[in-house]
Amino acid sequence: MDEILKQTLLYDFYGELLTEHQKEIYEQAVLEDYSLSEIAKEAGISRQGVHDMIKRCTKTLEGYEEKLHLVEKFVSVKQKVSEIDELLENYEHQDEKDLIAKVKRISGEIIEEL
Amino acid sequence: MDEILKQTLLYDFYGELLTEHQKEIYEQAVLEDYSLSEIAKEAGISRQGVHDMIKRCTKTLEGYEEKLHLVEKFVSVKQKVSEIDELLENYEHQDEKDLIAKVKRISGEIIEEL
Repeated sequence: MDEILKQTLLYDFYGELLTEHQKEIYEQAVLEDYSLSEIAKEAGISRQGVHDMIKRCTKTLEGYEEKLHLVEKFVSVKQKVSEIDELLENYEHQDEKDLIAKVKRISGEIIEEL
Repeated sequence: MDEILKQTLLYDFYGELLTEHQKEIYEQAVLEDYSLSEIAKEAGISRQGVHDMIKRCTKTLEGYEEKLHLVEKFVSVKQKVSEIDELLENYEHQDEKDLIAKVKRISGEIIEEL
Protein backbone atom coordinates (compact mmCIF):
# COMPACT_ATOMS: atom_id res chain seq x y z
CA MET A 1 0.00 0.00 0.00
CA ASP A 2 1.11 3.55 -0.78
CA GLU A 3 2.80 5.17 2.27
CA ILE A 4 0.59 8.28 2.33
CA LEU A 5 -2.60 6.21 1.99
CA LYS A 6 -1.40 3.95 4.78
CA GLN A 7 -0.65 6.92 7.04
CA THR A 8 -4.03 8.45 6.19
CA LEU A 9 -5.87 5.24 7.03
CA LEU A 10 -3.95 4.84 10.28
CA TYR A 11 -4.84 8.41 11.17
CA ASP A 12 -8.50 7.88 10.22
CA PHE A 13 -8.74 4.95 12.59
CA TYR A 14 -6.51 5.85 15.50
CA GLY A 15 -5.88 9.58 15.13
CA GLU A 16 -8.18 10.46 18.02
CA LEU A 17 -5.71 8.73 20.33
CA LEU A 18 -3.07 11.37 19.59
CA THR A 19 -2.94 14.67 21.51
CA GLU A 20 -4.49 17.79 19.97
CA HIS A 21 -1.03 19.18 19.23
CA GLN A 22 0.13 15.95 17.56
CA LYS A 23 -3.06 15.79 15.52
CA GLU A 24 -2.58 19.33 14.26
CA ILE A 25 1.00 18.72 13.11
CA TYR A 26 0.22 15.30 11.67
CA GLU A 27 -2.77 16.55 9.70
CA GLN A 28 -0.79 19.39 8.19
CA ALA A 29 2.01 17.06 7.14
CA VAL A 30 0.14 13.97 5.99
CA LEU A 31 -3.35 15.08 5.02
CA GLU A 32 -2.69 18.61 3.82
CA ASP A 33 0.81 17.96 2.51
CA TYR A 34 2.49 21.07 3.96
CA SER A 35 6.30 21.06 3.97
CA LEU A 36 8.18 20.53 7.21
CA SER A 37 9.47 24.12 7.04
CA GLU A 38 5.99 25.56 6.65
CA ILE A 39 4.67 23.52 9.60
CA ALA A 40 7.72 24.40 11.72
CA LYS A 41 7.25 28.11 11.06
CA GLU A 42 3.53 27.97 11.84
CA ALA A 43 3.99 25.95 15.04
CA GLY A 44 7.04 27.87 16.22
CA ILE A 45 9.20 24.77 16.56
CA SER A 46 12.24 23.56 14.62
CA ARG A 47 12.02 21.67 11.34
CA GLN A 48 13.73 18.75 13.09
CA GLY A 49 11.14 18.95 15.87
CA VAL A 50 8.32 18.62 13.35
CA HIS A 51 10.08 15.72 11.64
CA ASP A 52 10.56 13.90 14.95
CA MET A 53 6.99 14.47 16.01
CA ILE A 54 5.57 13.07 12.77
CA LYS A 55 7.85 10.06 13.04
CA ARG A 56 6.74 9.50 16.63
CA CYS A 57 3.04 9.86 15.70
CA THR A 58 3.41 7.36 12.86
CA LYS A 59 5.09 4.94 15.26
CA THR A 60 2.27 5.40 17.79
CA LEU A 61 -0.40 4.82 15.14
CA GLU A 62 1.44 1.79 13.78
CA GLY A 63 1.68 0.47 17.33
CA TYR A 64 -2.11 0.56 17.63
CA GLU A 65 -2.48 -1.21 14.30
CA GLU A 66 0.01 -3.91 15.29
CA LYS A 67 -2.12 -4.64 18.32
CA LEU A 68 -5.62 -4.18 16.92
CA HIS A 69 -5.36 -4.85 13.14
CA LEU A 70 -8.49 -2.79 12.52
CA VAL A 71 -7.22 -1.01 9.40
CA GLU A 72 -6.31 -4.39 7.92
CA LYS A 73 -9.76 -5.73 8.75
CA PHE A 74 -11.46 -2.63 7.39
CA VAL A 75 -9.53 -2.70 4.10
CA SER A 76 -10.45 -6.36 3.61
CA VAL A 77 -14.15 -5.81 4.36
CA LYS A 78 -14.32 -2.75 2.12
CA GLN A 79 -12.70 -4.70 -0.72
CA LYS A 80 -15.24 -7.50 -0.37
CA VAL A 81 -18.21 -5.13 -0.29
CA SER A 82 -16.83 -3.50 -3.44
CA GLU A 83 -16.70 -6.94 -5.06
CA ILE A 84 -20.40 -7.38 -4.25
CA ASP A 85 -21.07 -3.95 -5.66
CA GLU A 86 -19.28 -4.76 -8.92
CA LEU A 87 -21.00 -8.12 -9.30
CA LEU A 88 -24.38 -6.40 -8.99
CA GLU A 89 -23.33 -3.67 -11.39
CA ASN A 90 -23.06 -6.29 -14.14
CA TYR A 91 -25.88 -8.55 -13.08
CA GLU A 92 -27.66 -8.44 -16.41
CA HIS A 93 -24.88 -10.39 -18.08
CA GLN A 94 -24.83 -13.14 -15.50
CA ASP A 95 -26.74 -16.21 -14.55
CA GLU A 96 -28.98 -15.26 -11.62
CA LYS A 97 -28.35 -18.35 -9.47
CA ASP A 98 -24.63 -18.06 -10.02
CA LEU A 99 -24.66 -14.36 -9.12
CA ILE A 100 -26.64 -14.90 -5.93
CA ALA A 101 -24.30 -17.72 -4.91
CA LYS A 102 -21.23 -15.54 -5.45
CA VAL A 103 -22.64 -12.59 -3.50
CA LYS A 104 -23.76 -14.92 -0.72
CA ARG A 105 -20.32 -16.45 -0.46
CA ILE A 106 -18.71 -13.02 -0.14
CA SER A 107 -21.25 -11.75 2.39
CA GLY A 108 -20.65 -14.90 4.44
CA GLU A 109 -16.90 -14.22 4.37
CA ILE A 110 -17.47 -10.66 5.56
CA ILE A 111 -19.67 -11.75 8.47
CA GLU A 112 -17.02 -14.26 9.54
CA GLU A 113 -14.36 -11.57 9.43
CA LEU A 114 -16.26 -9.02 11.49
CA MET B 1 -27.27 -3.66 23.90
CA ASP B 2 -26.84 -6.28 26.62
CA GLU B 3 -24.06 -5.30 29.08
CA ILE B 4 -22.08 -8.54 28.75
CA LEU B 5 -22.28 -8.45 24.95
CA LYS B 6 -21.13 -4.84 25.02
CA GLN B 7 -18.19 -5.66 27.28
CA THR B 8 -17.29 -8.63 25.08
CA LEU B 9 -17.33 -6.52 21.93
CA LEU B 10 -15.26 -3.80 23.56
CA TYR B 11 -12.78 -6.44 24.63
CA ASP B 12 -12.73 -8.02 21.16
CA PHE B 13 -11.81 -4.69 19.63
CA TYR B 14 -9.58 -2.99 22.18
CA GLY B 15 -8.58 -5.78 24.56
CA GLU B 16 -5.05 -5.92 23.20
CA LEU B 17 -4.48 -2.44 24.59
CA LEU B 18 -4.84 -3.75 28.16
CA THR B 19 -1.88 -5.25 30.03
CA GLU B 20 -1.47 -9.04 30.17
CA HIS B 21 -2.57 -9.07 33.81
CA GLN B 22 -5.65 -6.96 33.10
CA LYS B 23 -6.55 -9.17 30.14
CA GLU B 24 -6.32 -12.30 32.26
CA ILE B 25 -8.63 -10.96 34.97
CA TYR B 26 -11.04 -9.38 32.50
CA GLU B 27 -11.34 -12.56 30.43
CA GLN B 28 -12.07 -14.66 33.47
CA ALA B 29 -14.76 -12.26 34.66
CA VAL B 30 -16.46 -11.24 31.43
CA LEU B 31 -15.81 -14.00 28.92
CA GLU B 32 -15.59 -17.02 31.20
CA ASP B 33 -18.04 -15.78 33.82
CA TYR B 34 -16.00 -16.73 36.89
CA SER B 35 -17.11 -15.17 40.18
CA LEU B 36 -15.09 -12.36 41.74
CA SER B 37 -14.16 -14.67 44.66
CA GLU B 38 -12.88 -17.38 42.32
CA ILE B 39 -10.78 -14.89 40.34
CA ALA B 40 -9.49 -13.25 43.53
CA LYS B 41 -8.41 -16.58 44.96
CA GLU B 42 -6.69 -17.63 41.74
CA ALA B 43 -4.88 -14.29 41.29
CA GLY B 44 -3.97 -13.92 44.95
CA ILE B 45 -5.61 -10.50 45.29
CA SER B 46 -8.66 -9.31 47.19
CA ARG B 47 -12.19 -9.61 45.87
CA GLN B 48 -12.39 -5.80 45.99
CA GLY B 49 -9.15 -5.61 43.99
CA VAL B 50 -10.63 -7.77 41.25
CA HIS B 51 -13.81 -5.70 41.25
CA ASP B 52 -11.84 -2.46 40.92
CA MET B 53 -9.63 -3.81 38.17
CA ILE B 54 -12.59 -4.95 36.07
CA LYS B 55 -14.26 -1.59 36.55
CA ARG B 56 -11.05 0.19 35.53
CA CYS B 57 -10.62 -2.05 32.47
CA THR B 58 -14.20 -1.42 31.34
CA LYS B 59 -13.62 2.30 31.73
CA THR B 60 -10.42 2.08 29.67
CA LEU B 61 -12.13 0.10 26.91
CA GLU B 62 -15.10 2.48 26.90
CA GLY B 63 -12.65 5.37 26.65
CA TYR B 64 -11.22 3.91 23.45
CA GLU B 65 -14.71 3.43 22.03
CA GLU B 66 -15.70 7.00 22.90
CA LYS B 67 -12.74 8.22 20.89
CA LEU B 68 -12.71 5.75 18.00
CA HIS B 69 -16.31 4.47 17.64
CA LEU B 70 -15.03 1.34 15.90
CA VAL B 71 -17.33 -1.11 17.67
CA GLU B 72 -20.29 1.06 16.69
CA LYS B 73 -19.08 1.17 13.07
CA PHE B 74 -18.42 -2.54 12.83
CA VAL B 75 -21.74 -3.48 14.47
CA SER B 76 -23.54 -1.33 11.92
CA VAL B 77 -21.61 -2.85 8.99
CA LYS B 78 -22.18 -6.37 10.27
CA GLN B 79 -25.89 -5.71 10.57
CA LYS B 80 -26.06 -4.45 7.00
CA VAL B 81 -24.13 -7.40 5.61
CA SER B 82 -26.52 -9.69 7.48
CA GLU B 83 -29.41 -7.87 5.79
CA ILE B 84 -27.82 -8.65 2.41
CA ASP B 85 -27.39 -12.24 3.50
CA GLU B 86 -31.05 -12.55 4.47
CA LEU B 87 -32.28 -10.93 1.28
CA LEU B 88 -30.31 -13.46 -0.75
CA GLU B 89 -31.54 -16.31 1.41
CA ASN B 90 -35.07 -15.62 0.21
CA TYR B 91 -34.26 -14.55 -3.33
CA GLU B 92 -36.57 -17.08 -4.94
CA HIS B 93 -39.63 -15.29 -3.61
CA GLN B 94 -38.56 -11.88 -4.83
CA ASP B 95 -38.46 -9.88 -7.99
CA GLU B 96 -34.87 -10.02 -9.30
CA LYS B 97 -34.52 -6.34 -10.21
CA ASP B 98 -35.98 -5.30 -6.90
CA LEU B 99 -33.65 -7.64 -5.01
CA ILE B 100 -30.54 -6.43 -6.83
CA ALA B 101 -31.55 -2.80 -6.20
CA LYS B 102 -32.00 -3.47 -2.48
CA VAL B 103 -28.68 -5.27 -2.11
CA LYS B 104 -26.92 -2.57 -4.10
CA ARG B 105 -28.39 0.16 -1.90
CA ILE B 106 -27.14 -1.61 1.23
CA SER B 107 -23.66 -2.33 -0.18
CA GLY B 108 -23.41 1.35 -1.14
CA GLU B 109 -24.31 2.35 2.41
CA ILE B 110 -21.63 0.05 3.80
CA ILE B 111 -18.94 1.46 1.51
CA GLU B 112 -19.86 4.97 2.58
CA GLU B 113 -19.64 4.00 6.23
CA LEU B 114 -16.22 2.34 5.97
